[in-house]
Amino acid sequence: MAKRVAIVGAGVSGLASIKCCLEEGLEPTCFERSDDLGGLWRFTEHVEEGRASLYKSVVSNSCKEMSCYSDFPFPEDYPNYVPNAQFLEYLKMYANHFNLLKCIQFKTKVCSVTKRPDFTVTGQWDVVTLREGRQESTVFDAVMVCTGLLTHPNLPLDSFPGINTFKGQYFHSRQYKHPDIFKDKRVLVIGAGNSGADIAVEASHVAKKIYLSLCLLRTQLKEYVINDELPGRIITGRVLIKPSVKEVKEDSVIFSGPPEEQPIDIIVFATGYTFAFPFLDETVVKVENDQASLYKYIFPAHLEKPTLAVIGLIGSLGSMIPTGETQARWAVRVLKGVNNLPPRSVMREEVNARKENKPTGFGLRYSKALQSDYIPYIDELLTYIDAKPNLFSLLLTDPRLALAVFFGPCTPYQFRLTGPGKWKGARNAILTQWDRTIKATKTRTVHESPFPFASLLTVFLVLLVAIFLFCL
Amino acid sequence: MAKRVAIVGAGVSGLASIKCCLEEGLEPTCFERSDDLGGLWRFTEHVEEGRASLYKSVVSNSCKEMSCYSDFPFPEDYPNYVPNAQFLEYLKMYANHFNLLKCIQFKTKVCSVTKRPDFTVTGQWDVVTLREGRQESTVFDAVMVCTGLLTHPNLPLDSFPGINTFKGQYFHSRQYKHPDIFKDKRVLVIGAGNSGADIAVEASHVAKKIYLSLCLLRTQLKEYVINDELPGRIITGRVLIKPSVKEVKEDSVIFSGPPEEQPIDIIVFATGYTFAFPFLDETVVKVENDQASLYKYIFPAHLEKPTLAVIGLIGSLGSMIPTGETQARWAVRVLKGVNNLPPRSVMREEVNARKENKPTGFGLRYSKALQSDYIPYIDELLTYIDAKPNLFSLLLTDPRLALAVFFGPCTPYQFRLTGPGKWKGARNAILTQWDRTIKATKTRTVHESPFPFASLLTVFLVLLVAIFLFCL
Repeated sequence: MAKRVAIVGAGVSGLASIKCCLEEGLEPTCFERSDDLGGLWRFTEHVEEGRASLYKSVVSNSCKEMSCYSDFPFPEDYPNYVPNAQFLEYLKMYANHFNLLKCIQFKTKVCSVTKRPDFTVTGQWDVVTLREGRQESTVFDAVMVCTGLLTHPNLPLDSFPGINTFKGQYFHSRQYKHPDIFKDKRVLVIGAGNSGADIAVEASHVAKKIYLSLCLLRTQLKEYVINDELPGRIITGRVLIKPSVKEVKEDSVIFSGPPEEQPIDIIVFATGYTFAFPFLDETVVKVENDQASLYKYIFPAHLEKPTLAVIGLIGSLGSMIPTGETQARWAVRVLKGVNNLPPRSVMREEVNARKENKPTGFGLRYSKALQSDYIPYIDELLTYIDAKPNLFSLLLTDPRLALAVFFGPCTPYQFRLTGPGKWKGARNAILTQWDRTIKATKTRTVHESPFPFASLLTVFLVLLVAIFLFCL
Repeated sequence: MAKRVAIVGAGVSGLASIKCCLEEGLEPTCFERSDDLGGLWRFTEHVEEGRASLYKSVVSNSCKEMSCYSDFPFPEDYPNYVPNAQFLEYLKMYANHFNLLKCIQFKTKVCSVTKRPDFTVTGQWDVVTLREGRQESTVFDAVMVCTGLLTHPNLPLDSFPGINTFKGQYFHSRQYKHPDIFKDKRVLVIGAGNSGADIAVEASHVAKKIYLSLCLLRTQLKEYVINDELPGRIITGRVLIKPSVKEVKEDSVIFSGPPEEQPIDIIVFATGYTFAFPFLDETVVKVENDQASLYKYIFPAHLEKPTLAVIGLIGSLGSMIPTGETQARWAVRVLKGVNNLPPRSVMREEVNARKENKPTGFGLRYSKALQSDYIPYIDELLTYIDAKPNLFSLLLTDPRLALAVFFGPCTPYQFRLTGPGKWKGARNAILTQWDRTIKATKTRTVHESPFPFASLLTVFLVLLVAIFLFCL
């Protein structure tokens, strides 16, 4: 009998997990708390408990060719950086194409996931769910937790003396939806991660004053801020960069460093997220100092049976979709019993080593703790399932493809060239990745230049001149 | 007795002209139609006849160190690219500092400027003004026309078959003030000059769809589009670039090229401006095919006496303020009689040669006709008044300054190092220009890196890698 797998959450990682289960002949049941799929990517005007919350303007911050499921490229006419509404459309296309909807139970909250009394032998779980007021308990052979990163806001009010006396409005960036609320206000955004920078830039179009406090910078030196409108807003004085906050008063804020007090109407805490698994007992996944004891960010290191996997709880320095998908591919094969984990002592060692790099400061710290390099991490997972492409042998058998793989961007299609889950469209997807990239911007017909290299030459010369001037 | 000079308009060129007149001992009277100074830079919620009209978000598109009057740097805490409200503040500081307000008659419209009967002998003008319903005629020895470039919209409806049947809203970019009107609309912006790009980008934050028609591109290849948010809006699909418009229908537009019809609610004609001098007789300045017969873009080439100058009617590829100011410095010395113009035949020759480069297409064409290189043009004017700095002798007398002038940006302070109008603060202003640039962004204290060149090295290496990858 096929193993029954409970999947918690129907966001990007949940969908990939369903598909991987189906491909490996398992029997997945996905429980989704809300009434639709998409998780993070489904914008709603109001924040929903237990689900990540987007602001209206969110756009994917990695490009479409790097952000897709490895066997399902974005449509060629999609823009290169995808607005959230279109991203959700894409996820729905994926779910329809691979017939995943039949496995999802919507409006179903997972209340608890506990080990069965015979867990040490069977590795089974009791999953208690709540749907329309009716509680139900079901036995599953395995569980995949796909509840994501951005659900539990981190609001470190204790670090802001005087915040209780503040008479203006303050809220966590998770509550932010539209810039209208900032109209003609003096706004302080605390935290310059992606949300902080986005919100400051948006607010700067309508607010009276915008201060962006970089109090988190010291803990975020590995962090990227991708908003490319921010520099323009700084040099036009629309966004003023400030140090950390020393004290909050009734209607103003005092910054650290040289004494400076500024009147403030609204404070936005873009101070990131923490994480928690309210439906899991501490003996299953223990979160301590914002670190979870997960081997390779996936498997609880101390469980007697490897029948629970956490998918998508990683701050990958690449796109989340292919990262979570690759995690799911490996995890499902472990759950199925085809792949094995190392002894628990080895897993605990890996987890403990990671814990020693305890980040300091608040905000996004879990993200930093979870941060890993994209390609080495994926390569490692692919090696486990024997799906890592061998560039040398590829060079001998298909030199054109090998060159595209070696010199081109590491698009997710490469993860489907070989091994279990091999996709026969992968080669073509790699060879046409630039066509899809360019196609998206070809919204008018142009006549080709008679000197096709003229523009390249110009760019080259401009770069040379830039270097020369820069060195002066 | 000091020569009396009528100055039409109290915008950036008008203010510079007043100051130059005062410095040269002339007696200026500036007539300003509206109730305040600033011209273009004074934002109002409603369009005023006869005055350029800004949208709320306009920011100077050359930086503050390149855009100032040559003897009046922007305050060091001003942002590098100056929002319009602060720009207006700066102009008011300038007017106060040099005590120019006493020479301005506000709410005074210039109805006509005509040659006096004895013009061929005296060069004098009858200037008829209207103030609070009362007409007045005054004799002036000279006239400086400072009415600017962006007052008379160019609305080429004839080039858009079917526009009369269009049931949506359409208007010239001059009418645009705030993006709110685009909320949830399908918008077509025609013309991708600076206004067109700015409006498309702003609208894209709130509109349902934004199309930016590049129908003018062929005539604008020398044009710059400075909005640096446009590329980001294109790759996120928020602004869709389209070819020219073939036909307008009741509620849609058909583009040229492969047949494509798109439903449209609002059309914005960002089709630039034309120019006119409604108060001047054609015998004084003749505008023909969007070209005026102005020697060095300033003096009517055929006048018997050089007692009328047009200031600021030039599409300089640099900042308008120092260009207009330098024009005024030369013009005032001509009006005063210290400098002479060449024979009229020589002037006509220069003007006719320029006319042969007649631009095609509509929109901004006059701007193209007026376009000139910034430094050669200013150098020429400075040579006329013997104020062009001699770099070689500077190298011998003040090598530090010479190096800053030679290798640094050509900031306007250089135009005040020598000759009439020499400013003793010029040297210091040049040597501190980067301090003022950096100061504007120093809104928090930072600790210096122990390796000051590390970041430079990184940038250099990144550029090298970029070139390498680009050449592959």
